[in-house]
Amino acid sequence: MGEENKVTLHGMWISPYVNRVQLALKVKGIPFEYVEEDLSNKSTLLLKYNPIHKKVPILVHNGKPVSESFVILEYIDETWKNKSRLFPEDPYERSRVRFWASYIQQVTECMLKVLKGEGQDEALEEFLEKLNVLEDGIKNSSLGIDTNIEGRNMGLLDIMIVVTLGGYKVQEQMFGVKILDPDKTPLLCSWVTSLIELPIVKEYAPPHDKVVSFLHFLKDVGFKTPRN
Amino acid sequence: MGEENKVTLHGMWISPYVNRVQLALKVKGIPFEYVEEDLSNKSTLLLKYNPIHKKVPILVHNGKPVSESFVILEYIDETWKNKSRLFPEDPYERSRVRFWASYIQQVTECMLKVLKGEGQDEALEEFLEKLNVLEDGIKNSSLGIDTNIEGRNMGLLDIMIVVTLGGYKVQEQMFGVKILDPDKTPLLCSWVTSLIELPIVKEYAPPHDKVVSFLHFLKDVGFKTPRN
Repeated sequence: MGEENKVTLHGMWISPYVNRVQLALKVKGIPFEYVEEDLSNKSTLLLKYNPIHKKVPILVHNGKPVSESFVILEYIDETWKNKSRLFPEDPYERSRVRFWASYIQQVTECMLKVLKGEGQDEALEEFLEKLNVLEDGIKNSSLGIDTNIEGRNMGLLDIMIVVTLGGYKVQEQMFGVKILDPDKTPLLCSWVTSLIELPIVKEYAPPHDKVVSFLHFLKDVGFKTPRN
Repeated sequence: MGEENKVTLHGMWISPYVNRVQLALKVKGIPFEYVEEDLSNKSTLLLKYNPIHKKVPILVHNGKPVSESFVILEYIDETWKNKSRLFPEDPYERSRVRFWASYIQQVTECMLKVLKGEGQDEALEEFLEKLNVLEDGIKNSSLGIDTNIEGRNMGLLDIMIVVTLGGYKVQEQMFGVKILDPDKTPLLCSWVTSLIELPIVKEYAPPHDKVVSFLHFLKDVGFKTPRN
């Protein structure tokens, strides 16, 4: 009975928070049904499942809802333990992944600020600065970011970074600056470019043109970040 | 050899992020050495252990540093599994605790904004509104916040809420408004008041007068939140 492990993801196609969960489910090979939500007209189910924040993503597992992307990612990794793991087993290695996940979360929030056109120049500068710090973090091998994806499955940090920066070409077009500069952030560049070549990532990525036109629309109307 | 499980916490006495970790270590009965950091003159060790954020809290376990309060709390619970658990065992219950922990984190950030005098009225209103939502969350028993501490050890949410709101009398004095109003937020009130009566909490709480004078000082100088 497939029903005893029914997984539904309520999302919104362009949200990086939703895309993280979607990609993680695919990486782990967990079958799920996807429900696109209209955030301008929230469904009864969305309001029922996440009465506190009224936001996506929401994962519903056998009728029980889980909200907030980080909470969902931990939940699916703990619940489907036998599938490819998003987090390492060792508590110290887990702590390092959580540390960098929280850092990439800040990068994502910063990028969304730029997209929303909030304090454009300042936000863009902060975004680029955060990428430099991330580059330093990768360079300092004692800090434990593994950017070599050869011979292993995607982990949490791979998922988060590719969702945030995988569309860097679109972002460069939008922001009018180079984001992934092989001279300034070579390690970050090669990490992201090797990730976007993976079949699982290609398959999930939203179409370039759809993203561009949507981002222009968002910039024009000034959208609300689903901070999740 | 005590040395093989050496735990040091680098902190700053008034930071709620540090206090969470400190109380969690006490609840779990993990012996640790505490090092007070002077944030206006950061030590070489602090910069070495947390080169990315340069902030406290930092937990150093057998020479290996862990930063960010949430990351530390997960780490200590996973590492000392046999001691009183901060998180429930069941993945779904864990997800609910993580959800509310993230909510209380927002309450804390909001409170710090008010203390810093940033957008005073607006921040204060947001802070009080968040407390109302938390009250609704407690009331809705299906959302899983357990505020009854009879016969069990303190868990993560107890620790977080008592650190953020345990000093509510000082905050009421500072903000000039009632924060924990038994008429408006009765369940939250009784949760917090039962927690501050616990010996372990009494023992850890910084002295009232010291807090008041420090908060006035912060308000005057406009302090930087250690967002951690």
